[in-house]
Amino acid sequence: MSKASIPQGTRDFSAGVVRKRNYIINTIKNVFELYGFEPLETPAMENLDTLMGKYGEEGDKLIFKILNNGLSDPRNTDKARAAFENVLQGKNDKQLTERALKYDLTIPFARYVAMNHGQLTFPFKRYQVQPVWRADRPQRGRYREFYQCDADVVGSTSLMNEVELVHIYATVFQQLHIDADIKINSRKILSALAELCGGNEKLTDITIAIDKLDKIGIEKVQEELLQRGLDEQQVGIIRQYLHVEGSNTEKINAIKELLGTTQAGVKGIEELEYILHYPSSAHIKPPVIDFTLARGLNYYTGSIFEVKARNVQMGSIGGGGRYDDLTGLFGVPNIPGVGISFGIDRIYDVMEELALFPQEVHSGTQVLFFNLGEAESKKAFSLMQQLRDKGISCELYHEQSKFDKQFKYAERKHIAYAVMIGSRELESNTCIIKKLGTGEQSAVALSDLAGYSF
Amino acid sequence: MSKASIPQGTRDFSAGVVRKRNYIINTIKNVFELYGFEPLETPAMENLDTLMGKYGEEGDKLIFKILNNGLSDPRNTDKARAAFENVLQGKNDKQLTERALKYDLTIPFARYVAMNHGQLTFPFKRYQVQPVWRADRPQRGRYREFYQCDADVVGSTSLMNEVELVHIYATVFQQLHIDADIKINSRKILSALAELCGGNEKLTDITIAIDKLDKIGIEKVQEELLQRGLDEQQVGIIRQYLHVEGSNTEKINAIKELLGTTQAGVKGIEELEYILHYPSSAHIKPPVIDFTLARGLNYYTGSIFEVKARNVQMGSIGGGGRYDDLTGLFGVPNIPGVGISFGIDRIYDVMEELALFPQEVHSGTQVLFFNLGEAESKKAFSLMQQLRDKGISCELYHEQSKFDKQFKYAERKHIAYAVMIGSRELESNTCIIKKLGTGEQSAVALSDLAGYSF
Repeated sequence: MSKASIPQGTRDFSAGVVRKRNYIINTIKNVFELYGFEPLETPAMENLDTLMGKYGEEGDKLIFKILNNGLSDPRNTDKARAAFENVLQGKNDKQLTERALKYDLTIPFARYVAMNHGQLTFPFKRYQVQPVWRADRPQRGRYREFYQCDADVVGSTSLMNEVELVHIYATVFQQLHIDADIKINSRKILSALAELCGGNEKLTDITIAIDKLDKIGIEKVQEELLQRGLDEQQVGIIRQYLHVEGSNTEKINAIKELLGTTQAGVKGIEELEYILHYPSSAHIKPPVIDFTLARGLNYYTGSIFEVKARNVQMGSIGGGGRYDDLTGLFGVPNIPGVGISFGIDRIYDVMEELALFPQEVHSGTQVLFFNLGEAESKKAFSLMQQLRDKGISCELYHEQSKFDKQFKYAERKHIAYAVMIGSRELESNTCIIKKLGTGEQSAVALSDLAGYSF
Repeated sequence: MSKASIPQGTRDFSAGVVRKRNYIINTIKNVFELYGFEPLETPAMENLDTLMGKYGEEGDKLIFKILNNGLSDPRNTDKARAAFENVLQGKNDKQLTERALKYDLTIPFARYVAMNHGQLTFPFKRYQVQPVWRADRPQRGRYREFYQCDADVVGSTSLMNEVELVHIYATVFQQLHIDADIKINSRKILSALAELCGGNEKLTDITIAIDKLDKIGIEKVQEELLQRGLDEQQVGIIRQYLHVEGSNTEKINAIKELLGTTQAGVKGIEELEYILHYPSSAHIKPPVIDFTLARGLNYYTGSIFEVKARNVQMGSIGGGGRYDDLTGLFGVPNIPGVGISFGIDRIYDVMEELALFPQEVHSGTQVLFFNLGEAESKKAFSLMQQLRDKGISCELYHEQSKFDKQFKYAERKHIAYAVMIGSRELESNTCIIKKLGTGEQSAVALSDLAGYSF
């Protein structure tokens, strides 16, 4: 007999949590759909080949590999042993493992597009909300199984896509009542900065250092840049860059002065201006330029986004950007794209902390019919059908037992109404409806029950 | 560079398929909710201990095990090698693998109930729709990753639960427009039959043989029973049993005559009668007694169910039954229950074959705005916001290009309407709305667009 336990870093989602998570996920999906994005679901497993080498050395180590079946078949023993020696040396061997759990949604999406590009209609706009797995050390807010929620448009270089993705962010967070800043920058502007500070080979160093600004502050960023081989004058330019402030227009003007001499700078500024000046509805909150935004991932080549919630201590709740090449790794070149993602777990935490979940999200069963005898409960049973036909969820307590016990059940399940039909009510064709929050109760004719506004 | 491929026995679900699957899943979930069932989600991974030994020897072999990470760390090499030798001998070793992908939804549910039984409100009614994984040889209609869809009530022996589950089946299949027979039998009746034919130790033999009736026919079943050690007289009784025919009432009468002398028989018949005679709504299709129904799984102890679709060649599309002990394997005794499941993949195939998916399931984007120039598309962009606010999904073609190309895009995405705003329309504040199915088109003032009934 085994003691019941759940793997470290994984979670059961019980009803209350599922309902709240679905409230978030459905809000996002509905907005994706309104913008013409289509759902895609890929399997949990991918071939190991598809995943390995795509996430850097550290990422590779965090991929959950699946053991091949049939290893204990004696005919395979020698091969399996040899394969295992390879694995011990950090190599992969298909004799032992050839499948793995997906690590993110981007590579499986790329694999899907590469496999089906002949049949797809481009621009291809897809969204995907699925779990991914990482063998990270579990800690508060970091899980080994967690959901990602991505939308991408591929096969188009139009900046209108960026404008729409910003709209999607604004609309979703507005609908969730989260006061959020959508930050925007461009990798081209970071390239321009690198061009002025030691050339393109410094781009990664500069990006990595800037990415830490929030955590370590400007002094430490400067130190790090010096350590990474930039000279005082170059660090001075970066200091100036990081100090650009004011409204979007003021920032654009300042950055034009700083980087407007470089080709990448001109292009990056032009693109940002296009996105920012695109005519928008009054109720769409405009994005905010943040030149200190870098986004760690290296495949971004154009605009980059990040979303932060106000009034709460929390990392970014969304991020994304433009990339030049989705599927080159799978032998299909020339598919550029732009995408955003929503951090479901963090959005959940923000909404929990700021008490933003609407009351109706919590409700399961709306009406409990008390079980007060055989004939009484049979009557109740047929009445419940009428309510269910009207979309009202209801239950009959499963056995005849004390009022107390039935009330307790209703209370623990947060059921709003009790309907009681005892022998007297059965005779008079009535029932008693009790609002459990207030204790208020009234007698209602059975023929009026289906019309009662619960 | 790796060639893009997907693991054998797994599937990508593209938009059309996702929408149809969700139509089925949401229909079922809505009915579960109306009956007071609550959602539960458990992780894809379980501890290997939780799963092993629960599915029989053959089942154990089909569990996908996850390789531990960090095996290539030199400090672990010796332990890992020793562990691997254990695995080669068919044993499990936590040094190598301690987690696995879930094989069904029942054992994770039992694990969840065992872990949380102190906090749960009983009777606990949960539903769960999630993927499971089996290392089966892939073949037509059999996948290594597939969805299960279960609802169970645990902590109650009330037969009202059976009545409700039968109602749920009937309601769901009615809503999906699938003409389905809900078959019912009781393990107690099978026990009674065993009692008369060699005693309880013959129950499994008899169940296994009867279970094959559909596939091999009555003659072969009789042969098999003789081989399994039953005598001619006993096989004669089983033959009589399998020939019971007629209406539910006629079957009950016949079975009373055959098995009414045994305690299990009396009890089983009484229970079936209770379920069948419970007052029901006129629009709920009653279940049909099928005494040849056995259900392979051994943990059922009371009523058993199976659903078959009419007018189509297809295995059962649902099944379930009552069990005495959900969580005993995890050290928590006395939690009986009853559950049903829906075979999502087969329901999908039935609906596809009988063309039962409603037209509206297929629709993604409803309106495509043509891109006919910079100023024109900016106008279109702000108009789209008005439509989206009304819940109409729309897109603007991503770049200015030939009519032809934009029409083709609309056609391939099955978009119903095109809205065209050229320079002339822009001047006169109008647009042209074209219904793409019929080619019908009309000029509409921009101010009337949001009110247009797409």
